[in-house]
Amino acid sequence: MDVSESFGEMLPWLKKYQEAVIVIKVGGHAMVDPAARSSMIKDIVTLKYLGARPVIVHGGGPEIDAMMKRMGKTPKFVSGLRVTDEETLEIVRMVLVGNVSADICSLISKHGGNGVGMVGSDGDLIVARRKAPEKAVIDGKETEVDFGWVGETVRINPKILNILMENEYIPVISPIGYDAEGNCLNLNADTAAGDIAAAINARSLVSLTDVDGVMMDPSKKETLLSQLNIAQCYDLIEKGVISKGMIPKILSSISVVKSGIQSVHIINGNIPHALLQELLTDKGIGTCITKE
Amino acid sequence: MDVSESFGEMLPWLKKYQEAVIVIKVGGHAMVDPAARSSMIKDIVTLKYLGARPVIVHGGGPEIDAMMKRMGKTPKFVSGLRVTDEETLEIVRMVLVGNVSADICSLISKHGGNGVGMVGSDGDLIVARRKAPEKAVIDGKETEVDFGWVGETVRINPKILNILMENEYIPVISPIGYDAEGNCLNLNADTAAGDIAAAINARSLVSLTDVDGVMMDPSKKETLLSQLNIAQCYDLIEKGVISKGMIPKILSSISVVKSGIQSVHIINGNIPHALLQELLTDKGIGTCITKE
Amino acid sequence: MDVSESFGEMLPWLKKYQEAVIVIKVGGHAMVDPAARSSMIKDIVTLKYLGARPVIVHGGGPEIDAMMKRMGKTPKFVSGLRVTDEETLEIVRMVLVGNVSADICSLISKHGGNGVGMVGSDGDLIVARRKAPEKAVIDGKETEVDFGWVGETVRINPKILNILMENEYIPVISPIGYDAEGNCLNLNADTAAGDIAAAINARSLVSLTDVDGVMMDPSKKETLLSQLNIAQCYDLIEKGVISKGMIPKILSSISVVKSGIQSVHIINGNIPHALLQELLTDKGIGTCITKE
Amino acid sequence: MDVSESFGEMLPWLKKYQEAVIVIKVGGHAMVDPAARSSMIKDIVTLKYLGARPVIVHGGGPEIDAMMKRMGKTPKFVSGLRVTDEETLEIVRMVLVGNVSADICSLISKHGGNGVGMVGSDGDLIVARRKAPEKAVIDGKETEVDFGWVGETVRINPKILNILMENEYIPVISPIGYDAEGNCLNLNADTAAGDIAAAINARSLVSLTDVDGVMMDPSKKETLLSQLNIAQCYDLIEKGVISKGMIPKILSSISVVKSGIQSVHIINGNIPHALLQELLTDKGIGTCITKE
Amino acid sequence: MDVSESFGEMLPWLKKYQEAVIVIKVGGHAMVDPAARSSMIKDIVTLKYLGARPVIVHGGGPEIDAMMKRMGKTPKFVSGLRVTDEETLEIVRMVLVGNVSADICSLISKHGGNGVGMVGSDGDLIVARRKAPEKAVIDGKETEVDFGWVGETVRINPKILNILMENEYIPVISPIGYDAEGNCLNLNADTAAGDIAAAINARSLVSLTDVDGVMMDPSKKETLLSQLNIAQCYDLIEKGVISKGMIPKILSSISVVKSGIQSVHIINGNIPHALLQELLTDKGIGTCITKE
Amino acid sequence: MDVSESFGEMLPWLKKYQEAVIVIKVGGHAMVDPAARSSMIKDIVTLKYLGARPVIVHGGGPEIDAMMKRMGKTPKFVSGLRVTDEETLEIVRMVLVGNVSADICSLISKHGGNGVGMVGSDGDLIVARRKAPEKAVIDGKETEVDFGWVGETVRINPKILNILMENEYIPVISPIGYDAEGNCLNLNADTAAGDIAAAINARSLVSLTDVDGVMMDPSKKETLLSQLNIAQCYDLIEKGVISKGMIPKILSSISVVKSGIQSVHIINGNIPHALLQELLTDKGIGTCITKE
Repeated sequence: MDVSESFGEMLPWLKKYQEAVIVIKVGGHAMVDPAARSSMIKDIVTLKYLGARPVIVHGGGPEIDAMMKRMGKTPKFVSGLRVTDEETLEIVRMVLVGNVSADICSLISKHGGNGVGMVGSDGDLIVARRKAPEKAVIDGKETEVDFGWVGETVRINPKILNILMENEYIPVISPIGYDAEGNCLNLNADTAAGDIAAAINARSLVSLTDVDGVMMDPSKKETLLSQLNIAQCYDLIEKGVISKGMIPKILSSISVVKSGIQSVHIINGNIPHALLQELLTDKGIGTCITKE
Repeated sequence: MDVSESFGEMLPWLKKYQEAVIVIKVGGHAMVDPAARSSMIKDIVTLKYLGARPVIVHGGGPEIDAMMKRMGKTPKFVSGLRVTDEETLEIVRMVLVGNVSADICSLISKHGGNGVGMVGSDGDLIVARRKAPEKAVIDGKETEVDFGWVGETVRINPKILNILMENEYIPVISPIGYDAEGNCLNLNADTAAGDIAAAINARSLVSLTDVDGVMMDPSKKETLLSQLNIAQCYDLIEKGVISKGMIPKILSSISVVKSGIQSVHIINGNIPHALLQELLTDKGIGTCITKE
Repeated sequence: MDVSESFGEMLPWLKKYQEAVIVIKVGGHAMVDPAARSSMIKDIVTLKYLGARPVIVHGGGPEIDAMMKRMGKTPKFVSGLRVTDEETLEIVRMVLVGNVSADICSLISKHGGNGVGMVGSDGDLIVARRKAPEKAVIDGKETEVDFGWVGETVRINPKILNILMENEYIPVISPIGYDAEGNCLNLNADTAAGDIAAAINARSLVSLTDVDGVMMDPSKKETLLSQLNIAQCYDLIEKGVISKGMIPKILSSISVVKSGIQSVHIINGNIPHALLQELLTDKGIGTCITKE
Repeated sequence: MDVSESFGEMLPWLKKYQEAVIVIKVGGHAMVDPAARSSMIKDIVTLKYLGARPVIVHGGGPEIDAMMKRMGKTPKFVSGLRVTDEETLEIVRMVLVGNVSADICSLISKHGGNGVGMVGSDGDLIVARRKAPEKAVIDGKETEVDFGWVGETVRINPKILNILMENEYIPVISPIGYDAEGNCLNLNADTAAGDIAAAINARSLVSLTDVDGVMMDPSKKETLLSQLNIAQCYDLIEKGVISKGMIPKILSSISVVKSGIQSVHIINGNIPHALLQELLTDKGIGTCITKE
Repeated sequence: MDVSESFGEMLPWLKKYQEAVIVIKVGGHAMVDPAARSSMIKDIVTLKYLGARPVIVHGGGPEIDAMMKRMGKTPKFVSGLRVTDEETLEIVRMVLVGNVSADICSLISKHGGNGVGMVGSDGDLIVARRKAPEKAVIDGKETEVDFGWVGETVRINPKILNILMENEYIPVISPIGYDAEGNCLNLNADTAAGDIAAAINARSLVSLTDVDGVMMDPSKKETLLSQLNIAQCYDLIEKGVISKGMIPKILSSISVVKSGIQSVHIINGNIPHALLQELLTDKGIGTCITKE
Repeated sequence: MDVSESFGEMLPWLKKYQEAVIVIKVGGHAMVDPAARSSMIKDIVTLKYLGARPVIVHGGGPEIDAMMKRMGKTPKFVSGLRVTDEETLEIVRMVLVGNVSADICSLISKHGGNGVGMVGSDGDLIVARRKAPEKAVIDGKETEVDFGWVGETVRINPKILNILMENEYIPVISPIGYDAEGNCLNLNADTAAGDIAAAINARSLVSLTDVDGVMMDPSKKETLLSQLNIAQCYDLIEKGVISKGMIPKILSSISVVKSGIQSVHIINGNIPHALLQELLTDKGIGTCITKE
């Protein structure tokens, strides 16, 4: 496809995403390489100029782990959640807000956009509550696990996001919530992204990960499934095609789609311009999950 | 260049034309082929969705000539202007407003945009006066020529254009002016486009013609000059590189640039997606004329 | 009645029509005389300054017939509709939009108002579909008639009209619609006026014709019926008082009144200041049709 | 002139006064007859519906005198100003605000408009200061006269008037000012009307009096002078045509016109529809004073 | 409580009344002393600056009685209502509007606020009807009493109040209504305050009287009841604790609370800063009546 | 002073600070005690509800030092500035943004306000450049000191602050700037507060420190100087009354006052309600510096 052709084919995509709110979950392993990170943010700024309204929700697992190690602490996970004691919480907040978020805002600024970092206490954005202890099997024994300062979303107050978007800013949200007593809580970034998307009536939620999407045979890129509906997802889980770490991702995507978001996209953030290719081409580049 | 690359490189162009008013002069021989016409209009709608504010000014020479012939009249030109008697004026207005403009609006609508046809009397858009007779050499003899109902712009009232653009409409203007007595006047489309561009503080004026631009050697496409400033234009006229029909085009472009418009672009409307290639790529596809 | 008295008695009428949208159907035989046309438009501008919001819908039968003759074509009507082949459609559009509408706008401008010409494709104003062929008796034989490019309104998008009215412009609408494929369609001006009136919640629809209204005895002006409700209309049709060409006019008025418009007025556009006399005096000058 | 003619001739007047602020000074002897008062207010409401923005400033001399007599006090005037002791001031305020103004508002309401009574303390509308004592000849002797609570305008704060006019209300102003200490002051209604007209950039000031205007021979109505400029006024004063009580009226009108108001009109409020006849006809009914 | 403590405790009160509309009924015996009156108005201006939206409704019984005596008339009351003949009505209006209201506006202005005096005819604020004659026992005989120009509220049009409050003005309302024929009517100030509070969705109605509130033993200040709900009110009336003149006040408060106002406060206007103490402290200073 | 008196005397202060932007610099040693910090933030929220527009700029020296120690690094200062290597910068940003700012926002939320944390890259708020190396005497030797990632303000873009304040949010700013290449820079909080105050036309800048203000004799609280103008400041420096660490504070205050801010206040954040006592009482509680 040459340039004139690609220009000529843009119109339907532009129409589709005009003024559409797109929540983009970035972070984790897809953000480690500085060049890839910068390119990813550039694509988000491009999306903004193309007429969409991107909202970024970021994680920061690798960065938090690194900082904990520097401070002599060992990260601890149960059921995929970081057990968060007082000191860990402090590190999580410092790294996410003071490091990852501020870095994303500075990259947005560098590429000509205007980002604004947000945390749960900004304009009461994310009201959360502490997660109740859960039974889990650790080292073969069922144990009741207290996750510490891990939280669950109670309510999203989207007002500040709407004000920022109307004024052409790109909100950059760290998944830190606050409970009614003002206690800070560590939230799962994927879940927070889904909650925020639902609260602001987003059109789509894009998850920039380090996998290419759902594949019939993970070793063969050409077996990538571009489009799945809820029924197909359940079917593939049953058949074992979707397995292991991909299962919670897909289950969470299904729940987001059920909440009214038109599409959830799982794409590989390490592919150059993955975001634009997924949203602005017919075939896309990852897996798009829709209701029907 | 593949699609991801082309999207990935769009950001500087998007920034450049964001909310920029672009006056696009279409028509004449560049509009005769229906497919080319439709594609051209599609590009203008794409430009609108990319964030620019296009305003179309159209001509309609071939269509007017055809209609005159059908009605048994012979078109007559002196110094490049159509001598316009009462009956010709009626035909000019009918063809431009009732035919060309309405057709462009319908194509805009078909491609998902919203056009609104405008003529000089709409909201007093173009106040004009009758052109004074001029001396010209006809058949070897100097004669005083009365051009009839040919007019010159006196004043543009851009209010209606601004209202339409703020409401996301694409104005489509037929070059018909009105004098203080309510007489209709036939205007030159190129001149009218320049006058309108100046009155609405357009960023650029693009002229969709049937030539590729200014070439050192018109027979060799590779000698196209992508960028010219005013001084270079005068120099090329003196050297004879710019000659014949291209001279008035360039002189008019110089005058537009002098009125404060940042760039005038002469491109070939028959090249697919010429408009987008000219405005959204580094090299462009035609000739861009700037002040310095 | 002297001037002070007439001013002194205006208040109830001013209150009645303040910010009221009034659709005025002009054209056909009531528009042929230039002085009458100019005076009619002046009254509409006066109405605007008095606080009402006039919207003009015009026809142009005599002008189209004249142009067809000049181009060697014979107008053809079946069941009161113009059979519209490709060439006729082109002439209809050119004459209505390029001639009649532009002329009305120029007269509005001359009298100090601001008109804006509109056609169905402007802001997707009139979405139409092609009328299905109908059985009709021609020369004594029942024949299926294909009316060609004659259309029926599918949907009116009033947004552009509201924007123009809020900005103090007078919309001037040519009854040309467009179907989903972008095909142009010739609409009946009376029907279009009714459809538009309903879509913009007009208070009244005024039809400027060349008859004085409904008369008990058409030869006696003093038998004019100033006020009729739906029941009375049906009764007069049954009794034969309303007959021939007046029947479709009255039936169409009934349907407009049923759609929620408060009053339909049939007045003689050739009477000086007929419009103002009908709307701003107690007795009126033509026939006013209301629901009850 | 029949009704259709009068309607036909309204347009230029409507254009002239569209959104024009017209300060109307009513009161004194022109307001005594209830029917005339009601008709005068009806005309003002008509003017509002015709598109102008009327502001009423009223006096109330006869009503104040009557109330003073009922309360056993004798009105006292020096140099045309009411000497205002504490008790008189109380009566002046009660009669103007509680009686005349409230009555005008109720008449406006009755005729379908919305009036709002205003006094100098409302939104700090009229900041005034106490008039210094002046030398005057009383009973043949030069005496220094302390006018008591008589005030002079220091500053008009037009904000509240603009808010009311934008919301379609008709302000009705009693000429009562307040000084910095909160003391109430009795102002001359004519002077206050002029000060207010200047502060709100009124187009015209109309004074509804009980005389027909300036006449060459006061006994002959046909010698009324419809139009005077400043130079002519001075000339007529010198020639003695303008004399006695008319002199201060004319001098005050001159000063208003000099402050930038386009025209001052002196008309007889007892003539039916005098206001509309003066403002909406070519000849007018009283005397109009302009700069040149 | 020292100053820093009192500052420190303000926050909950500020939150409570932020943008809350508070109707304050002043007048009668609580307004007679000039220093107390000025202090009361200063508190209302303070309340405005603290973020609330005060609306003043005033009475003026003592001032009306005094004026009637000066004019040789004897006030006459039946069932607590002033029998209002034509002349009394004139005095009532003059005193309330021209005297009391104007005085309050001037005090507001002196303390740095912006008041605007309002009467029922201003923007059709209070539409009323004449009260029907009622049977009453006078001098031991049941008589039908015609109260004259005493009115009852039919409808409040709050638009003008909302416009004024949005523009930071404090409306000052005299309880004078107007019927459909434009007749002026004397309203009970307490009732009018309640009607207005309901129409503008006030949060609270504060009645500044000359009693301290409801007391178990009126001779002992310490028996003041700070908080009463509807049930308690009825109970206290039954037990005779609420008796005589307090009964109508409490019944009227109950009806206001039932109409949706959150609280009615009866406080003693002669206590310095009674208004602020009641609204901005935990204990208050008078009696607060709520639904439950 | 009892509560009614304190409320009764608030009006002049309310007027003074109504809609006034107040920049409050908090942090350092005045923020260490959690109860004092919470009380300080509560006062700021109170100020917001009283009608002012507070903007918080915070430091975090002690918190940064503590974190550095935990990570095994030794803080290093030259000329009062923290020498900031790559790793220190990361810690500074994490602690300020991720810890101090987020904590302040959560306290604001707890007290019923809405804070929004801001850093220099948010909406390009603080554009800075790296501070050039400076000569300084270290251990008795003149050395050129490279401060590392310490920055100086180049430009403040107040747009995002204005949007937040108009929407009733309290901006909480960490003194972190960004240069044109997107590098993060550590700014001095006092200087940043002054720069921001100037850029948003603040009325006052309040510095919450751990000293009581300027005292003639620092050991005697009663020698506190409540009010100083620029000339007096210079005089006291010369006389040695202002000495040591207070000198840069006063010099910086002088420069802020010269930039157009009406007053700079140095107060002791550990005194309960110091902020409200300083701004809302006649005498204040610390030292207020003004131009003249």
